[in-house]
Amino acid sequence: MKKKAVILLSGGMDSVTLLALAIKQGYQCHALSFRYGQRHSVELTAAKRITSSKGVEHKIIDLDLSRFGGSALTDTHIDVPTTPSEGIPLTYVPARNTVFLSIALAWAEVLEARAIFIGVNAVDYSGYPDCRPEFIQAFEKTANLATKAGIEGDKFKIHTPLINMTKADIILTGHQLGVDYSQTVTCYQADNNGKACGVCDACLLRKKGFEDAGCKDTTRYSV
Amino acid sequence: MKKKAVILLSGGMDSVTLLALAIKQGYQCHALSFRYGQRHSVELTAAKRITSSKGVEHKIIDLDLSRFGGSALTDTHIDVPTTPSEGIPLTYVPARNTVFLSIALAWAEVLEARAIFIGVNAVDYSGYPDCRPEFIQAFEKTANLATKAGIEGDKFKIHTPLINMTKADIILTGHQLGVDYSQTVTCYQADNNGKACGVCDACLLRKKGFEDAGCKDTTRYSV
Repeated sequence: MKKKAVILLSGGMDSVTLLALAIKQGYQCHALSFRYGQRHSVELTAAKRITSSKGVEHKIIDLDLSRFGGSALTDTHIDVPTTPSEGIPLTYVPARNTVFLSIALAWAEVLEARAIFIGVNAVDYSGYPDCRPEFIQAFEKTANLATKAGIEGDKFKIHTPLINMTKADIILTGHQLGVDYSQTVTCYQADNNGKACGVCDACLLRKKGFEDAGCKDTTRYSV
Repeated sequence: MKKKAVILLSGGMDSVTLLALAIKQGYQCHALSFRYGQRHSVELTAAKRITSSKGVEHKIIDLDLSRFGGSALTDTHIDVPTTPSEGIPLTYVPARNTVFLSIALAWAEVLEARAIFIGVNAVDYSGYPDCRPEFIQAFEKTANLATKAGIEGDKFKIHTPLINMTKADIILTGHQLGVDYSQTVTCYQADNNGKACGVCDACLLRKKGFEDAGCKDTTRYSV
């Protein structure tokens, strides 16, 4: 029987590459996405299309983090920045990765999966505190104290295969695995068809990744 | 200005006592509850009644953990046990406290609250792994690595004032603070009016608490 894994899948280029990597590593994958009040919820359409095409089980969980606000991604009163910022950017969503990993842990425990994959990246990480290795290690320890499985000695592992990759590394890895990046949505303010603005932080990082990788940028831009 | 705190409030006797303690300690309290697919969602009516009467801000977040199942509390195909079990009981909801604390952390970061109160109890804890002090410590460490506030040195603290109390201690503390336990819902299968079954694990622990405290049990039972 295949080992099971829960894959946090936003529908962006990192998490789609992550899913391809986990499949390549032989995991039976269960993809988890969130409708959390994000501006760019069209990313969920991308996520659904990709899991359908691969025959991967996919759950989209509703959890409205815009009830709290505090981020340009969930509060329409805060504009998405169009220039790279110093420090932690306005697009940081408070405790988002902790929340997503916790819910992934809940599903993993029920599935008896012991692997959770998250596409965090500490190189091009834009200053998000919850993308750092020390956060991931602390969460993994917490997960194993929190759960029946952890207590019984059958421990969870949080897999972060992209954590030390540049965006260019991720793109080159994805190309080897046959990922079609035109189908992924990275832009923080993508339109309803999944076309990217081309100017937000996320678009700038993505563009630079294709340039650095020397690959054609197949992103669909609205301008 | 008062210090702010996020209080995880189920509407049961422990969390209602917790709220009374946090108010007594001078915190400006923000109560957080979850409609998570629990059988006994009537507890939310109790929570709302209590926060309204105290003028405390209260958010109820929808997060359907029954999408995953795996617990007698969220899966109607699994009966609620009526005899105390050995080990971790069927009413354990996978990773529930990790999920609830994570979402409390998200709200706390936006509110600029640095205190999060949770009514876990390691004495009468029924074998739940996520009620143990080592879990709480690990979560607190994770919270401070996950967030902007933690990085900037203004650290979060997870408060667990009930952790070493017996149910009787909790009841005596609540009586001193004027808590009306007839308004709280503990039962895992309470009816729509909040009346308790009197036979589930949670009811048995509650009954014993009143006996040990030598107090009149004001719980409303359906039989």
